[in-house]
Amino acid sequence: MSLDAVLSHVDNDFENAIARLLDLLRIESISTDPAYAQQCDAAAEWLVDDLQDIGFNTEKRPTAGHPMVMGTGGTGGTHVLFYGHYDVQPVDPLDLWDNPPFEPRLEETENGPVIRGRGSSDDKGQLMTFVEACRAYKAVTGSLPSKISIFFEGEEESGSPSLVPYMTEHAEELRADVALICDTGMVEPNTPSIVTMLRGLVGAEITLNGPNKDLHSGMYGGPSINPIRVLTRALADLHNDQGGVTLEGFYEGVPELPEQVAQQWQGLDFDEAKFLAEVGLSVPAGEQGRSVLEQIWSRPTAEVNGIWGGYTGEGFKTVLPAQASAKVSFRLVGTQDPDKIHAAFEAHLRSYLPADCTLDYHRHGASSASNMKIDHPAFEIARTALGDEWDNAGVYVGCGGSIPIAGHFQDIVGIETMLIGFAQDDDSIHSPNEKYDLRSFHKGIRSWVRILDALSKT
Amino acid sequence: MSLDAVLSHVDNDFENAIARLLDLLRIESISTDPAYAQQCDAAAEWLVDDLQDIGFNTEKRPTAGHPMVMGTGGTGGTHVLFYGHYDVQPVDPLDLWDNPPFEPRLEETENGPVIRGRGSSDDKGQLMTFVEACRAYKAVTGSLPSKISIFFEGEEESGSPSLVPYMTEHAEELRADVALICDTGMVEPNTPSIVTMLRGLVGAEITLNGPNKDLHSGMYGGPSINPIRVLTRALADLHNDQGGVTLEGFYEGVPELPEQVAQQWQGLDFDEAKFLAEVGLSVPAGEQGRSVLEQIWSRPTAEVNGIWGGYTGEGFKTVLPAQASAKVSFRLVGTQDPDKIHAAFEAHLRSYLPADCTLDYHRHGASSASNMKIDHPAFEIARTALGDEWDNAGVYVGCGGSIPIAGHFQDIVGIETMLIGFAQDDDSIHSPNEKYDLRSFHKGIRSWVRILDALSKT
Repeated sequence: MSLDAVLSHVDNDFENAIARLLDLLRIESISTDPAYAQQCDAAAEWLVDDLQDIGFNTEKRPTAGHPMVMGTGGTGGTHVLFYGHYDVQPVDPLDLWDNPPFEPRLEETENGPVIRGRGSSDDKGQLMTFVEACRAYKAVTGSLPSKISIFFEGEEESGSPSLVPYMTEHAEELRADVALICDTGMVEPNTPSIVTMLRGLVGAEITLNGPNKDLHSGMYGGPSINPIRVLTRALADLHNDQGGVTLEGFYEGVPELPEQVAQQWQGLDFDEAKFLAEVGLSVPAGEQGRSVLEQIWSRPTAEVNGIWGGYTGEGFKTVLPAQASAKVSFRLVGTQDPDKIHAAFEAHLRSYLPADCTLDYHRHGASSASNMKIDHPAFEIARTALGDEWDNAGVYVGCGGSIPIAGHFQDIVGIETMLIGFAQDDDSIHSPNEKYDLRSFHKGIRSWVRILDALSKT
Repeated sequence: MSLDAVLSHVDNDFENAIARLLDLLRIESISTDPAYAQQCDAAAEWLVDDLQDIGFNTEKRPTAGHPMVMGTGGTGGTHVLFYGHYDVQPVDPLDLWDNPPFEPRLEETENGPVIRGRGSSDDKGQLMTFVEACRAYKAVTGSLPSKISIFFEGEEESGSPSLVPYMTEHAEELRADVALICDTGMVEPNTPSIVTMLRGLVGAEITLNGPNKDLHSGMYGGPSINPIRVLTRALADLHNDQGGVTLEGFYEGVPELPEQVAQQWQGLDFDEAKFLAEVGLSVPAGEQGRSVLEQIWSRPTAEVNGIWGGYTGEGFKTVLPAQASAKVSFRLVGTQDPDKIHAAFEAHLRSYLPADCTLDYHRHGASSASNMKIDHPAFEIARTALGDEWDNAGVYVGCGGSIPIAGHFQDIVGIETMLIGFAQDDDSIHSPNEKYDLRSFHKGIRSWVRILDALSKT
C-alpha cells in the first residue's frame, strides 16, 4: 500500500511542489549567453540544496563551462540514473512574451491551468517531476524506493561542450541499470510516450566575407560582390523542390521505416492538420510523400536558424555589406555521420564562393541520432506503469529533437536510456510564452512514483 | 583681379573654414532614425545662422519630416540654385570606426591630410565648399557674385519623403537659370568631373511570415515551413549566373551606351583593378561583358542591403523562425520605370510564396535615373573653370549613386542641374571612417569661386 500513500502525498503536497518549481524558474540560467554564467551556477546550487533536503548525497562539479550536479541515494532494486538539464533557451524576441520570461506564474487557459515561464517545460518543469517523485517517496517511506543516481547538466541548450569529457571521465560513476530522462513530450495529451528514436544534430555558424568594408551600393553596386547574394544562393540550394536536402551523401545512413513501426505510428491518435494549425500552418513543408510524423521523427532536415547581414535597423541604408552570416542546423536520423554532414555542408558552401569571397565555418556540436533497444526489461515495466496513471496506454514513439546524451549513455557508459516526458506540443519550448501544463507536472510526478515503484521490485 | 583676390582669401581663411566644417560635423544629423530628429533640426539651424552671417536671407522651413533651409542673396549674372543635404547616414557598425563618428578630426594619411567623421564627404563637407566660396566672395567684394539661391534638405539619406511635395509647392521660388549640386565625386584624384548620368533607386523592405511564432526546429523541423528558406530562394533567384537581374521586364528602358560616350569613358584614367583592390576585391561581380565603369554608371543592379531572421545572437538556438526580412534596392538607368520595378519585384516574391507564407512589402522610395542636357551653356563654362583649378581638364562622367533631386529639378522646376563634386572613391561614404580630403575641401571651395565668377559674367 506504500504506492498509494506516496501518490496521496504527491497530491497533498502539490502546492508546495509548484512553489519549488517557480523558485527554480526565476533563475535566469541561459547557458548559451556568457552574460548569464552566474545564473547558471545559481540554478545548479539550487538543485544541490534541494536534493540534499531529500537526502541525496549531492555535489556541484565544476567543468570548463557550467557545472554538473551529481547526487546519489537509496539502495536496492533497479539502479536508475536520472538525467536532466537546468539551463534554458534564450528568451528573445522578448516583446512577444505576455509576461516576463523569468517571472513565472500560474495561468488559467482554455486547456486548463499552466505554469508560464522560460524553462517551465524545457527542462526545469520536467526535471522536477522526478525530483518531486523522489521527495514524496522519502517523505512517506523514509527512504528512496531503490538506488538512484542524479545527473544534471547546465549546457544542454548550448551544445553540451563539457558533457562528453565529463561522462568519459566519470563513466564508472554514471553506470546504472538504466538511464531515465524527462525531456520529451507526449504524442497526444492523454497518451504517455516513451521515445525510442531521437534525431541527431549538427550545427554550424558561417560567415561569408566579401569586400573589406561596408560599401555604398551606388558607388560599388554592380562590380562589388555582395556576400548576401552568395549566402542566399548557397542556402537556397540546400533544398530541392521536393523538400529534400541536396548535400552530397546526405541520405547515406537514412533508413526506411520498418513496416511494423510505420503501422504503429499510423495507429497513433495524431492529427496532422491540428498539429500544423496550432502554429498557423496547413501544408507539410518537409519531404514530399512523407507523413508529418515521419518528417519530424524519422527523416533528416536542414534548417537555417538565423541569418543576418547588412543594415537591419530602422529605415533604409543602401549599404553593400562586407559580411553575411547564418546559423544552420541539420537533424540527423539512422546512422548519418555528423562529421560527414559538417564536411558536406562546408564543401557545399565553398563550391558557391566566388574568387573574392572567403568562408568562416564554425562548428556548433555534432551528434548522431539515437535508437533505443526496447527489449531491455525496463521499457515494458515503465510502459505499463504509465498506462496505470494516464487515460491511454503508454506508446513507443520517435522524437524530432536532439538529446545527444541518450547516445552517450549507450556509447560511453554502456547503458540503455528511457526517455519519458510529459511535455505537450503546444508548450512553446524555445519560443515566447513557454508553458507546462499543471496536469503534466502533477501526473508526471505521479508517473515517476509508479515507475520507480515498479522498478524497485525487480 | 577680383577672382585672384577671392581665391587668396579662400587660402588665407582656410583654417577657419575647417573649423566651421568640424562644427557642423559634430551634429549627429542621422535622418533615417527618428531618435536623431532634434539633431537634424540643429544642423538646419546651424546652416541658417551661417548663411545669415554671409548675408543670405535665410529661413528654416518645416516639413512633415526634417526642415528645409532656404536662402537667397546677390543680384545679376547667371541665377544659380545650390542644393545640398545636411543629413548623414547611420554610423553602424560603430566598432569599426577608429574614432567616434561625430567627433571629427584632422588626420594625416599616406595620401595627405583628411577630415575624418560621418558626413565629412557626404554631404556636409561638399556642401560647405559652396558656402565657403560664397563667404569668400562676400568678404572680398562685399557682395555675392550673382543671384544665388540656397536649398538644403535633411532627408536625402532616408529617401527624401518631403522633397517632392515641397518642390512642387515651391517650384516658382526654386526656379533659377541652373541648379548646382555638390554631392558627387571625381573620377580620379586630379580630374574634376561633372556628372551627366545618375542611377535611380527603388528600395523595398520585405518580411516573409510563416508559422505564427518561433518554433523548435526539433519539434517542427520538417513539416513547418521556414520563412528563411523561402526568402533565401527568392533573393538568390534575383540574379542569373551572368550577374544579370532576373525580374520580368527589368531591362525595359535600359539603353546601350552611345559609342561616343563609351569611347570617352575608355579614355578616362580609371584603373579597374585599383578601384576593386581598394575594397579588397579583384573580380568585377556585375553583368559579364561590361566594364566596371559601365557596371557602376550605366547598368542597373539589384542588391540586398540587409537581411535578418531567426536567432542572431551569441551561441546557437535551434529556432525555426516565424519571420524573415530583407531590405532590397535596385539602381535604375535610362528610362526604367520605378513603379514597374516595384511591381515586378513584389510579383517575383509572391511567386515564391508557399501556401503557408505571407508577404509584407513596404516601399522605400522610387526614383528614376537622370540624364543631363549638356548643351546648356553653363556646362562648358563650368568644365573650363574646373580645368583652371585642377591638374587635369574637367570631364563628363556617370555616377552609380542616386540623386533623385536632379530629376526633380528637371521635372518639377524645369531647370537643368550640374553635379560637380570633389569626393574621392576612397572617402568611405556610408561606411565607417568616412573622410574628406583636405585638398578636396580646399580646391573644391576654389573651384566654386571660379565657376561662380565665370557664371557671373554671362
